[in-house]
Amino acid sequence: MQNLREKSLELHKRFKGKLSVGVKVSVEDVNDLSLVYSPGVAEPCKEIYQNPEKIYDYTIKGNLVAVVSDGSAVLGLGNIGGGAAMPVMEGKAALFKVFAGIDAFPICLNTNDPEQIIQIVKSLEPTFGGINLEDISAPNCFIIEERLKREMNIPVFHDDQHGTAIVTAAGLINALKVVNKRIEDTKVVVNGAGAAGIAIAKLLVNMGVQDIILCDSKGAIYKGRQNGMNPMKEFVSEITNKSNVKGKLHEVIKGADVFIGVSVAEAVTPEMVKSMNKDAIVFAMANPVPEIMPEVAKAAGAAVVGTGRSDMQNQINNVLAFPGVFKGALRVLASEINEEMKLAAVYAIANLIEPEELSSDYVIPHALDKRVVEAVAYAVADAAIKTGVARKIDLEPV
Amino acid sequence: MQNLREKSLELHKRFKGKLSVGVKVSVEDVNDLSLVYSPGVAEPCKEIYQNPEKIYDYTIKGNLVAVVSDGSAVLGLGNIGGGAAMPVMEGKAALFKVFAGIDAFPICLNTNDPEQIIQIVKSLEPTFGGINLEDISAPNCFIIEERLKREMNIPVFHDDQHGTAIVTAAGLINALKVVNKRIEDTKVVVNGAGAAGIAIAKLLVNMGVQDIILCDSKGAIYKGRQNGMNPMKEFVSEITNKSNVKGKLHEVIKGADVFIGVSVAEAVTPEMVKSMNKDAIVFAMANPVPEIMPEVAKAAGAAVVGTGRSDMQNQINNVLAFPGVFKGALRVLASEINEEMKLAAVYAIANLIEPEELSSDYVIPHALDKRVVEAVAYAVADAAIKTGVARKIDLEPV
Repeated sequence: MQNLREKSLELHKRFKGKLSVGVKVSVEDVNDLSLVYSPGVAEPCKEIYQNPEKIYDYTIKGNLVAVVSDGSAVLGLGNIGGGAAMPVMEGKAALFKVFAGIDAFPICLNTNDPEQIIQIVKSLEPTFGGINLEDISAPNCFIIEERLKREMNIPVFHDDQHGTAIVTAAGLINALKVVNKRIEDTKVVVNGAGAAGIAIAKLLVNMGVQDIILCDSKGAIYKGRQNGMNPMKEFVSEITNKSNVKGKLHEVIKGADVFIGVSVAEAVTPEMVKSMNKDAIVFAMANPVPEIMPEVAKAAGAAVVGTGRSDMQNQINNVLAFPGVFKGALRVLASEINEEMKLAAVYAIANLIEPEELSSDYVIPHALDKRVVEAVAYAVADAAIKTGVARKIDLEPV
Repeated sequence: MQNLREKSLELHKRFKGKLSVGVKVSVEDVNDLSLVYSPGVAEPCKEIYQNPEKIYDYTIKGNLVAVVSDGSAVLGLGNIGGGAAMPVMEGKAALFKVFAGIDAFPICLNTNDPEQIIQIVKSLEPTFGGINLEDISAPNCFIIEERLKREMNIPVFHDDQHGTAIVTAAGLINALKVVNKRIEDTKVVVNGAGAAGIAIAKLLVNMGVQDIILCDSKGAIYKGRQNGMNPMKEFVSEITNKSNVKGKLHEVIKGADVFIGVSVAEAVTPEMVKSMNKDAIVFAMANPVPEIMPEVAKAAGAAVVGTGRSDMQNQINNVLAFPGVFKGALRVLASEINEEMKLAAVYAIANLIEPEELSSDYVIPHALDKRVVEAVAYAVADAAIKTGVARKIDLEPV
């Protein structure tokens, strides 16, 4: 770890950050100047003023995503603020560019007030073609995303929720194929009721999971629970846990087919895995130390294990989702990223692995698999068109 | 003009805008990913959290300027809004990069409310190392700049005011050398009481001009005038027009040594120029059509004529100031751009022309003169250090 620390600090210091702004046009003589700036630049301005949609022809907006954070829930570091969050948001923007060719830019804010964040992001709509919310703590992240989705005409996507949910669901679909179970018959337990856990539960319910229980540190979330509830958990209690099961994680995990952890290191013991159904699937995604180490989970009987780590098999990595999701949405100028588009991304990721390639150690494409972004982008664009949220019909793969 | 229009639209459409976001680090394998993003990226975050000033070591903030506009006073186009202003702000950002190597990014807003703009820009302080306000209409531009300068710890600079004033003043110093007059003895008339006119008047007063009158469309601004006043014009009436002269432009221009126009096409007639003092200096900077054409002004007796146009002699072009001003301020992490730094920029620009090179057709360096940016940056950084607003002492020319 010491080595990683030194290497990372050295890398960040060498170039003073990771991004730069480039100029796509020549600015070498007076002639160039008169086109790029005054007086020629007035022409695209006038065109856009007369027809606002032309902003997508004449500016960078159509390929530009804001990576917005208040730094309130950064990696495992907690509320470190917008300034200290800058390296993460620069990194995220770099991934957008490298994986999808999307220009993305960090917008790190020094306010945690959700109403203020909403107003700021809304005001930026002329500049950006999409909004990626990042590392904003619950419950503000839900409030902010919900309002922005309703009040803006460009895609808004909280990656900690939906990116994680999409990739987890894709891995789960393939893991279920490996153990030959149907999603409708599966009992799922999700541990962790933050942004990711709640989004995963919602998506899996939409995908047909009937029996799903979400746990927080107090145990199962159920209708009527009094302790440690909030509006999102109330909502969760409505759409999950139909039998209103109560109890701690070690109790409700008994007989489960699937465990999904977005919680804390070592939250799961070998005994808990042993108490699960035959051919258990364990996605232990706490970072950097999973809820249970893969070899321990396997020794306790798990058939398929995934984590969030790049040095282990079956890495559940958001980078499989967000570049393609935005690329697809931007390609057709989608006004939003709806449930159908997210589901399209899930199946596009899962289906990249052919049935004959599938194995317990290969249920999800590698983070650097170059096929993923275009497969996801195509599926998402297609879903946007089919659900009527596309403003431009363009399905050519590029 | 038709040709310029088509060329500009074609250029803007070809690349969909003029900027891109580049990635300065390699992101090719899992190892790179672990440094650029999770888990390695946590290390610079922790460093910055513990010592906020380290944001300048590990992120792009120190070389990053926001080009902020609400699109309320764009070129000659008026209030066209943030979206239609995007081509201009992209162009401005491109000039920052090409002329000074500064990464600059457009922040176009869909609100004209000054309080909201203030809150938004203040919230962006974690991301940006400097704020360039652009094309915001008066009087909001004064209110916004004043508040941001007071409430932010990074340089805030409204280029339409101070960039124009700096370059105009530099040109004036050299023009006075050509006609062998002293600035203290000069009578100056400025036509146009918007952002640029007021900033020019303030700067010239600071530089020692004793007799200066600012006119708007109603004529001279004087203490006690009732018509068409506002708080900025009240302020102007306090620092200019000591003899409380009244009258229209054609009256007050009589006997003036210097006319500076930041107003409208053809506001000045040959008769007005003839009524000026001997060896008159005329800076007619209305764009694209000057207050009076240079050949007409010269025929009427003007000794030195400047305009805002690149196809004429003595172009008063902001690009001579803002790249170097920001480069100097960022180099020493100045907390603001104060009057001394602006004056340093004025003299740095003026002094680039050696006395023996000076002529009535060459009082200001060419817009593309590569020496300007470093000369200005060095002088501005030096002034920042001497006035105690530098947080880092670094005067190495780069």
